[in-house]
Amino acid sequence: MKTIGYAAYSPDSPLAPLTFERRALRPDDVAMEILYCGVCHSDLHTAHNDWGWSYYPIVPGHEIVGRVTATGSQVTRYQIGDHVAVGCMVDSCQECDQCHNGEEQLCREGHTGTYCGHDRHTGEPTQGGYAKHLVVREAFCLRVPDGLDLARTAPLLCAGITTYSPLRTWNVGPGSRVGVIGLGGLGHMAVKLAVGLGADVTVLSRSNGKEADALALGADRLLVSTDAGAMNKAANGFDLIVDTVPVKHSLDPYLPLLDVDGTLVIVGQVGPMAETNTVPLLLGRRRVAGSPIGGIRETQELLDFCAKKNILPDCEMIRMDQINDAFERMEKADVRYRFVIDMATLSDGQA
Amino acid sequence: MKTIGYAAYSPDSPLAPLTFERRALRPDDVAMEILYCGVCHSDLHTAHNDWGWSYYPIVPGHEIVGRVTATGSQVTRYQIGDHVAVGCMVDSCQECDQCHNGEEQLCREGHTGTYCGHDRHTGEPTQGGYAKHLVVREAFCLRVPDGLDLARTAPLLCAGITTYSPLRTWNVGPGSRVGVIGLGGLGHMAVKLAVGLGADVTVLSRSNGKEADALALGADRLLVSTDAGAMNKAANGFDLIVDTVPVKHSLDPYLPLLDVDGTLVIVGQVGPMAETNTVPLLLGRRRVAGSPIGGIRETQELLDFCAKKNILPDCEMIRMDQINDAFERMEKADVRYRFVIDMATLSDGQA
Repeated sequence: MKTIGYAAYSPDSPLAPLTFERRALRPDDVAMEILYCGVCHSDLHTAHNDWGWSYYPIVPGHEIVGRVTATGSQVTRYQIGDHVAVGCMVDSCQECDQCHNGEEQLCREGHTGTYCGHDRHTGEPTQGGYAKHLVVREAFCLRVPDGLDLARTAPLLCAGITTYSPLRTWNVGPGSRVGVIGLGGLGHMAVKLAVGLGADVTVLSRSNGKEADALALGADRLLVSTDAGAMNKAANGFDLIVDTVPVKHSLDPYLPLLDVDGTLVIVGQVGPMAETNTVPLLLGRRRVAGSPIGGIRETQELLDFCAKKNILPDCEMIRMDQINDAFERMEKADVRYRFVIDMATLSDGQA
Repeated sequence: MKTIGYAAYSPDSPLAPLTFERRALRPDDVAMEILYCGVCHSDLHTAHNDWGWSYYPIVPGHEIVGRVTATGSQVTRYQIGDHVAVGCMVDSCQECDQCHNGEEQLCREGHTGTYCGHDRHTGEPTQGGYAKHLVVREAFCLRVPDGLDLARTAPLLCAGITTYSPLRTWNVGPGSRVGVIGLGGLGHMAVKLAVGLGADVTVLSRSNGKEADALALGADRLLVSTDAGAMNKAANGFDLIVDTVPVKHSLDPYLPLLDVDGTLVIVGQVGPMAETNTVPLLLGRRRVAGSPIGGIRETQELLDFCAKKNILPDCEMIRMDQINDAFERMEKADVRYRFVIDMATLSDGQA
């Protein structure tokens, strides 16, 4: 089927309309009309080819909420009209230990990205959710629970699961002491989700300018990371620190905050991290880890958890044709906290 | 009591004899004649004040094996003539959660170093095992099991426990896939202990020059870390990598070797580690950690394990007056794999 989307045509050009083909339904496929799509930093990095693996034209978008319009002959879990969601993956081998364990994001053969991937059957490049329609394998389709606001659900599919998964991997629950570095799309979700899981949550920030925001999101306090006295006092006080900062930085100020066997988990920066002094690691048997999105089962768990707890991101709705302005504002961290595209604003006439 | 030892008198001077006082026995103290003392890189760093916290004169040495010569009135576990050992710690608060958990090395108040520490009662500087006699709190005294070669037992007290503890923390056992980077005092113990625990063990080295040594120590193979093809083939193949390299270096070549959720544990470098690319951490949920020596209970477990499995370090015996040559050779990594001082070579007449 033909559909319309917004694509980058080169690393330097603004996004512009593109008419392109979605594949014909396979027996295990679900077709959907996209209603909302969140705007992730990865979209921007991919449009600009910052990671070196982009192709063009590329339609970004992997925080997708839609309505089922057709189902393949073997689809059992979804019916036309259902509200569904798709995140960062649209396929994996489904045969390795990781896939069997519900961790398709860690598939031994590599998962297929929602965009910037290649279809496992045809090898064709995948295109993302800045578009009117999507066809996706049923196994990578999530159910949006009744009652969740559809527009604000979209960012859960990447910003949400990327922060929820490490909270679950490191067993955050009532009594856990969680720190969050960075208060953007990922960071504000980390705060809400950790609070929802019952943790004591501290936002770490270079000044106290975001204190009111942090408290409004549910954090118990803001700790100013440039205040040496306050940082010393907070030493050994965290079980898990979620580091959402998306640029190269030093971990040295933060590692002494971890308790013995505590972990700082990186979810923001993709690339080099500054030199790290090993002394806090050695003296407290502390750990630094990374964590990539989450599996399909865990993503469904997140959606259900958010519905139950009424946890949703703070979003700013935009029209599809505002995407280039949104990218510019994102580069200046000028968004609280996630842009979501209302796909009703994308009409077929634009192509 | 008066004793004699070898001390550094300044960061630049060679070690030379020193007559000094060991404290009078407290009720919970054990006095011992030191028979053997291993020579650790930390001794050299402390003598040279490389870490900035040395005082002078300082008697190094924290791989100590001796024979009990007297016991305080409340000592219950040791008798005159028993073979005992002392490692890197001689005291801790004994009241915090870590001490209660048998992890005195992580004591909330900081453990008291065997040297370069301060006595918790008098505040006097502690002096280490390059000496004829030692007085130590019973709770920090280990029992040397019958049958262990006393001379070669000494390095277990630091090189041994520093590598055994992470193997135990990360649950190494039959079937575990363990890598060891660096084949010095710590590295060669990591190999022997991991083999003893039933693991499949790979030595990582920049060339294949150490292959015969690695196999002689019991390793299953040597992997040349500069061979890109071999490294690619080995990707995702390790549960734990023990990094014993004692200088700043890059972790980037090694992190892709870890399987999902695998850990690289740093036990060698105390100070800055080079910039690290986060991509392998993110993509495999991999971890980097540090680990400091081990607790008293675990150290006793190590001694008992080594006696049962007949695991001992490879040592080169030296006289006390050869210590300065030994330091020079250590700086060139010219030792296989640990110097041990035969303290019978230190006579009172030398002072």
